[in-house]
Amino acid sequence: MNSESASIPTKEDILKAADRIRGLIHRTPLMTSEIINSQLECEIFFKCENFQKAGAFKSRGATYAITSLSKDKISYGVCTHSSGNHAQALARAANLLGIKAYIVMPKNAPSVKIAAVKQYNGEVTFCEPTLEARESTLKKVIEKTGAVEIHSYNNYNIICGQATAAKEVFEDIDNLDIIMAPVGGGGLLSGTALSTKYFSPNTKVIAAEPENANDAFRSFYTGKFVPSIKPDTIADGLLTSLGSITFPLILKYVNQIVTANEDSMIKAMQLIWERMKIIIEPSSAVPLAALLENKLDIKGKKIGVILSGGNVDLTKLPWL
Amino acid sequence: MNSESASIPTKEDILKAADRIRGLIHRTPLMTSEIINSQLECEIFFKCENFQKAGAFKSRGATYAITSLSKDKISYGVCTHSSGNHAQALARAANLLGIKAYIVMPKNAPSVKIAAVKQYNGEVTFCEPTLEARESTLKKVIEKTGAVEIHSYNNYNIICGQATAAKEVFEDIDNLDIIMAPVGGGGLLSGTALSTKYFSPNTKVIAAEPENANDAFRSFYTGKFVPSIKPDTIADGLLTSLGSITFPLILKYVNQIVTANEDSMIKAMQLIWERMKIIIEPSSAVPLAALLENKLDIKGKKIGVILSGGNVDLTKLPWL
Repeated sequence: MNSESASIPTKEDILKAADRIRGLIHRTPLMTSEIINSQLECEIFFKCENFQKAGAFKSRGATYAITSLSKDKISYGVCTHSSGNHAQALARAANLLGIKAYIVMPKNAPSVKIAAVKQYNGEVTFCEPTLEARESTLKKVIEKTGAVEIHSYNNYNIICGQATAAKEVFEDIDNLDIIMAPVGGGGLLSGTALSTKYFSPNTKVIAAEPENANDAFRSFYTGKFVPSIKPDTIADGLLTSLGSITFPLILKYVNQIVTANEDSMIKAMQLIWERMKIIIEPSSAVPLAALLENKLDIKGKKIGVILSGGNVDLTKLPWL
Repeated sequence: MNSESASIPTKEDILKAADRIRGLIHRTPLMTSEIINSQLECEIFFKCENFQKAGAFKSRGATYAITSLSKDKISYGVCTHSSGNHAQALARAANLLGIKAYIVMPKNAPSVKIAAVKQYNGEVTFCEPTLEARESTLKKVIEKTGAVEIHSYNNYNIICGQATAAKEVFEDIDNLDIIMAPVGGGGLLSGTALSTKYFSPNTKVIAAEPENANDAFRSFYTGKFVPSIKPDTIADGLLTSLGSITFPLILKYVNQIVTANEDSMIKAMQLIWERMKIIIEPSSAVPLAALLENKLDIKGKKIGVILSGGNVDLTKLPWL
């Protein structure tokens, strides 16, 4: 069973999603840093999804996807495979609505993330840490439970939910020249691109990706899907490949993809921790890292940057 | 030369201070955490002075103190001895107003703090790390420069500036049962107590202090000044003794002082980092630490907690 709705979210779909999840998720603030602005000679508005429920933007999509299914369809629960933020977000949203969440996690997933899923009453099934094992284990879980799968990004309702983050950015700040988001599987980026098209069509959509996991970059500029094979980056939220739904949306609606190296990602992460006093995970640091590397002409411009999440193992910081 | 104004700040003084420093400092937000509230069965509103200019509430007092002096008086600059947040705050405020700041710092002050003072164009003079050396070095600086001393807490204008933090808390949230602040030299606590008396007289003022630096606790309950001798705590902002101005104010207007041990301070700090995704320094964690130790009956109550600052050496975290 798959929960994908059949078509690209419209403006009305995104407005509906925002209405539906209001009160179930946080409306997160925009933050700015004078020091970062003066260093980069531009104005950056950081959308703090690190403050989002369950610590990441993923709560938007997961909550909307579950609430979009009929009671009948979710009567046996929902399920997914994820080692990270989607697992927590789906478990939280299911718990909120009183249904079961079955989460397949690789057995090497960080213990803090496993604990978070269990805290939201998610039922965890462990598997080998390969995509094949995750998919085959999930298949067995579905056969056994009748739960409906909610994929972490290759799902129109998930994309529609993630789109609400950029919609809020445009409500809070006018005339952005650029909006940036990190890209992994492409759920956040697709949603951001759609919201930009509908709510701020003059704003450019620019994605940022780790150089050491640059499958989206290569897919985008060759026009052909390149899978993510053995990515080697601290940005643990950006290891996955684009999906059959996200890739065409990104090709059509994203203006540019830039990459950043691991060193600048660590620098950007540390800059935000030190100067803004907020905790972001490495994936959130990639757009600022690309700006620190002068990958874009941003002088005098107004830029929105989505900080995707704040779930970090505080005992394993990349600068230590 | 000393800049102390002669009397206890009135309600009008605090209103004037708030007006004067508006635009020169941040109006910081209140944040809440569902998880912490449900764990402690109460409602806590955290005043995020970690987001304050120069990373701590100290910018309030320093900015107000400087702007309260005549142009004539500050024509030769301002000075202080401090190893921490007051040094940065005074250097920043002076820089903002185009005057010199001379800062005496112990030679073992953290390099990150020295760098911050210099970044704000503060002129640093190093001395041995004793109170005697700090005071005698400052005296020499004053003789040489004619700068006016602005003490970090034993100064009515400083106290008046710090009082604006609690004033903002009471503007943002009604009917607090308790307001809590950490206590070191007592500047923040005195200001908090005065604002409570003027703006929310039914709210109890409760201070929190590290068990291993409990001079204020002992002074408060014996009614006799006890100096801080060899305090041994991770809360590096709370090492100092009460002052001749702050102690009487605290005796008169504070309801209670509670202590917290080092373990619960680390737990509280980590809880706030992990759950709220914000960076606070150890001193900020002391009130929550005391609550985690069940030092107060808080069930069902509404509590304001001032998070004093967020200046932490990110390479030396107490849980590592």
